[in-house]
Amino acid sequence: MANKVQQYIDQLEKLDIKNMYENDFFLTWEKTDDEIAAIFAVADALRALREQNISTKIFDSGLGISIFRDNSTRTRFSFASACNLLGLEVADLDEKKSQIAHGETVRETATMISFMADVIGIRDDMYIGKGNAYMHEVVDSVTQAHNDGELEQKPTLVNLQCDIDHPTQSLADALHIIHELGGVENLKGKKLAMTWAYSPSYGKPLSVPQGIIGLLTRFGMDVVLAHPEGYEVMEDVVKVAEKNAAECGGKFTVTNDMKEAFKDADVVYPKSWAPFAAMEVRTDLYGKGDFDGIDKLEKELLKQNAEHMDWVVDDEMMKLTKNGLDTLYMHPLPADIQGISCEHGEVTAEVFDRARDSLYKEASNKPYVIAAMIFLAKQKDPVAALKTLLDAGKERQSFLEKK
Amino acid sequence: MANKVQQYIDQLEKLDIKNMYENDFFLTWEKTDDEIAAIFAVADALRALREQNISTKIFDSGLGISIFRDNSTRTRFSFASACNLLGLEVADLDEKKSQIAHGETVRETATMISFMADVIGIRDDMYIGKGNAYMHEVVDSVTQAHNDGELEQKPTLVNLQCDIDHPTQSLADALHIIHELGGVENLKGKKLAMTWAYSPSYGKPLSVPQGIIGLLTRFGMDVVLAHPEGYEVMEDVVKVAEKNAAECGGKFTVTNDMKEAFKDADVVYPKSWAPFAAMEVRTDLYGKGDFDGIDKLEKELLKQNAEHMDWVVDDEMMKLTKNGLDTLYMHPLPADIQGISCEHGEVTAEVFDRARDSLYKEASNKPYVIAAMIFLAKQKDPVAALKTLLDAGKERQSFLEKK
Amino acid sequence: MANKVQQYIDQLEKLDIKNMYENDFFLTWEKTDDEIAAIFAVADALRALREQNISTKIFDSGLGISIFRDNSTRTRFSFASACNLLGLEVADLDEKKSQIAHGETVRETATMISFMADVIGIRDDMYIGKGNAYMHEVVDSVTQAHNDGELEQKPTLVNLQCDIDHPTQSLADALHIIHELGGVENLKGKKLAMTWAYSPSYGKPLSVPQGIIGLLTRFGMDVVLAHPEGYEVMEDVVKVAEKNAAECGGKFTVTNDMKEAFKDADVVYPKSWAPFAAMEVRTDLYGKGDFDGIDKLEKELLKQNAEHMDWVVDDEMMKLTKNGLDTLYMHPLPADIQGISCEHGEVTAEVFDRARDSLYKEASNKPYVIAAMIFLAKQKDPVAALKTLLDAGKERQSFLEKK
Repeated sequence: MANKVQQYIDQLEKLDIKNMYENDFFLTWEKTDDEIAAIFAVADALRALREQNISTKIFDSGLGISIFRDNSTRTRFSFASACNLLGLEVADLDEKKSQIAHGETVRETATMISFMADVIGIRDDMYIGKGNAYMHEVVDSVTQAHNDGELEQKPTLVNLQCDIDHPTQSLADALHIIHELGGVENLKGKKLAMTWAYSPSYGKPLSVPQGIIGLLTRFGMDVVLAHPEGYEVMEDVVKVAEKNAAECGGKFTVTNDMKEAFKDADVVYPKSWAPFAAMEVRTDLYGKGDFDGIDKLEKELLKQNAEHMDWVVDDEMMKLTKNGLDTLYMHPLPADIQGISCEHGEVTAEVFDRARDSLYKEASNKPYVIAAMIFLAKQKDPVAALKTLLDAGKERQSFLEKK
Repeated sequence: MANKVQQYIDQLEKLDIKNMYENDFFLTWEKTDDEIAAIFAVADALRALREQNISTKIFDSGLGISIFRDNSTRTRFSFASACNLLGLEVADLDEKKSQIAHGETVRETATMISFMADVIGIRDDMYIGKGNAYMHEVVDSVTQAHNDGELEQKPTLVNLQCDIDHPTQSLADALHIIHELGGVENLKGKKLAMTWAYSPSYGKPLSVPQGIIGLLTRFGMDVVLAHPEGYEVMEDVVKVAEKNAAECGGKFTVTNDMKEAFKDADVVYPKSWAPFAAMEVRTDLYGKGDFDGIDKLEKELLKQNAEHMDWVVDDEMMKLTKNGLDTLYMHPLPADIQGISCEHGEVTAEVFDRARDSLYKEASNKPYVIAAMIFLAKQKDPVAALKTLLDAGKERQSFLEKK
Repeated sequence: MANKVQQYIDQLEKLDIKNMYENDFFLTWEKTDDEIAAIFAVADALRALREQNISTKIFDSGLGISIFRDNSTRTRFSFASACNLLGLEVADLDEKKSQIAHGETVRETATMISFMADVIGIRDDMYIGKGNAYMHEVVDSVTQAHNDGELEQKPTLVNLQCDIDHPTQSLADALHIIHELGGVENLKGKKLAMTWAYSPSYGKPLSVPQGIIGLLTRFGMDVVLAHPEGYEVMEDVVKVAEKNAAECGGKFTVTNDMKEAFKDADVVYPKSWAPFAAMEVRTDLYGKGDFDGIDKLEKELLKQNAEHMDWVVDDEMMKLTKNGLDTLYMHPLPADIQGISCEHGEVTAEVFDRARDSLYKEASNKPYVIAAMIFLAKQKDPVAALKTLLDAGKERQSFLEKK
């Protein structure tokens, strides 16, 4: 029964992950290959332990602080689940109920909420150049406060989505591909199409496509980024993807042709996003408080979107791929499903329904990925920690087996 | 000291409750008599354990998800209390903070919030034909997701009030009557008056009177439902009550005369509700987005209500009952108290004040009833589980007795 | 290693604190000197235990209810941290999501939320004559409900700020002064300047200056309260301060000259507040629903404030104090920092930045003070309880030291 967990522990044991302890998680490309592999191993180990009804609580008390600067269901519940799995209680900083509007500095707020915080999870993806910077400011603040003796512990940051990357999503996605293809070694040479798709809404975050091209290029895959002209992503991340591909013996190409991307793809990931350049403009307008300008920009972008309604995934498109209708279709959810949640959207109901089970499994990785990030930041010797949990075998739910 | 708990365990041991394990709780009349009796026994056992400062945590970690589609204080806190008592942390799905408005399906949301959910509690009582149906959709979704391997466990549904029934309320009410009358066997032949009462507000849920007539007719009681003409409840539930009465040797009658209902009653339960037919119209108007129509309907209903201001419980009315001013007066709270919270209302301050202690005890059953529902759904052998908790005798609050 | 904790236990052992058990915390001046000293000793002990990674959970389950009738970040997180540290889960009564607006009485709400509540923390500081009265009404209600058998336990009240006092703040402040001056015995004869300061906002609570003069006069300090004419605080609290000073061999004086207060001060505490008389008028206007009157009052008060922009703490002011720029500068945060959060404010950035570390340490005491209040109300023998925790040495975070 316990062999499955032991197998993940064995994987973990071979990795050099000493820098993860007491560290933070901002961007996947700031982490070594061993560190990325450790996230996968620990996520799978925690899931296997839970499936065997073995408790993985490593905290007797402690808080996981969440800050959501945008609406969220699945990331909110994933974070809550991960914290609960490890023994932390979630305390949400609802900025509407706080005094932050009183002109308080990030440094002060970060310190004030962290007196007993072991983790801080932040989602801040709305404005270019802001979200990741804000997370760094928070981490710098709590690090200094810890060094100055104001905080008993330095909480670990988990990036729950910023303007640059969405690491808990891209790692959950990558883990899903690994599970579906039967091992990380099987990703080498496989073609992944990260493509734009039409949505009737505008301004969807760039962090998903950026996260995918920044991470999946590391496994020797043939990653194609496809989007209409004008929907370019952040140039810095394109460079990361190019560098990764060069170093890993994979490929990274950009095209404006969705069909070309789909052609013979092993994995397709079609999803709407906003043009990076427009999001930069929007951030400037927001900074100036020019809400009329923002309204005007929104209308222009919706019009621009509408020119590309043909970027939709239907059965015809799927048939272009390597395994046709059976090819792995991915999405972070919720998707704009044509005829279900909108008239024209990212994907037809046929394609979506066929992929539903796989999509939900993809999503089910996120709580474990977040828990793995926390676990690795909080355990000096995660191998010993996992072994201890496995050997202790404390029931998560008690008395299950009694008759 | 522990005998009281043992006595409830002994009761439980005699019951056939094997179908409760891994099951859900929608409507009381979908449960067998043994299953209803098991809720009472476990609720009383959990309360007795807590009173003896014995921990009843059966979860080391896990989440209880709550979805409230209407404002709530007591049900919200009852659910939070029940989850906490068993070791679950509450995660509330605040639909305003979520992305559900983005046209996401129930199936998807239900799965996305349930990756580590052991329980889902839902209150959705606003629209006829919607609340209970929504709960079933949620349960079907998570069952499928569990079978498909997307959810590690299938969370148990607790109906925290739907358009048809309010089982946590009616069971808490029934348990109160049992305690007050000194045993369930003493309910046989007793007269209970479930009557409408005037309220200056409109549209109060029908699930309370429906829940009461659907449950209390099972114990051989003489249940009278009284309301002005036009305030009929859901016909299907009336049929349930009639069938129950026929099977249990009790009586179920409907009258438009409040005094007739109160005459010689052992228990009175006067409470405002909206006419079922009007609530059906309202649901249709809502479906069409006809808010002017809803406003118009509201005015008509308030006018209709105002014709029945004489449906108020005062001392004169109480004197008609079996034990006069001492007769058991029940209400789910908050009540519209004449002269306190409104000029004309459901009950006078005299009657309410005399009943206050009893009403608060009635309410105090709800957390234990909810905890019992969860306990019985999550423990294959609840008798062994309760014995183990009792024998372990782990303190809920530590060190209480040290000197 | 453990000696530090033992030292606080030794302090606690000498104190007569038998009345704290099962009691509440409203105002510091309702507590004996021994009881105040016990809060300090237990707060320091709990911090020392946490710093040694020793669990201080005294509850296996249980709820800490919070009611915030005003926005709050740091008090909200302090309460959540304190509850979590002791093993309680926070359940927040968000009055917007509740049915309290339906005219429900305080007595009823208090009972309904307390069925499994071990603690209730309330912040209600907005209206003169209301907040503290509300807290008493809550405590009277739950005491009666406990005596009447409706509540299994009587929850303990923690005053998280009322119209009269802000005990968790003033005790955290006092503990900071004790730490900074190297012991409570060193406060005797030291001069503390509690002074008004200019803020561009209006209506800041009086409970901070009132809490400070009501508490710090107990340690034989020379406490000076300084404010412009018209900014008098509540007369009853001035009398408390005078009485304390007389009994403890200290001094309490009031002046309208900020410089006089700063002259040779060992500690300065400059902070804006609203005139007590104006707040009384505001409460009356609010009671009458006269919102135009409130708007008018606000404008008058802002105009009145603006006449005192010179009440700002800059380096020149600090140089008047005993230790010049090194003198202990205190604030409950967030401060109105000139040039940072406002054009003219309470303090210059130079002074604030120099004091930042100290201010954050001051704030870090609050969770431990709240936890100490709960601990002392819930443990009959807190000395034995602390010893047991220390001897057990259960890890708060597990496996930290394994290699």
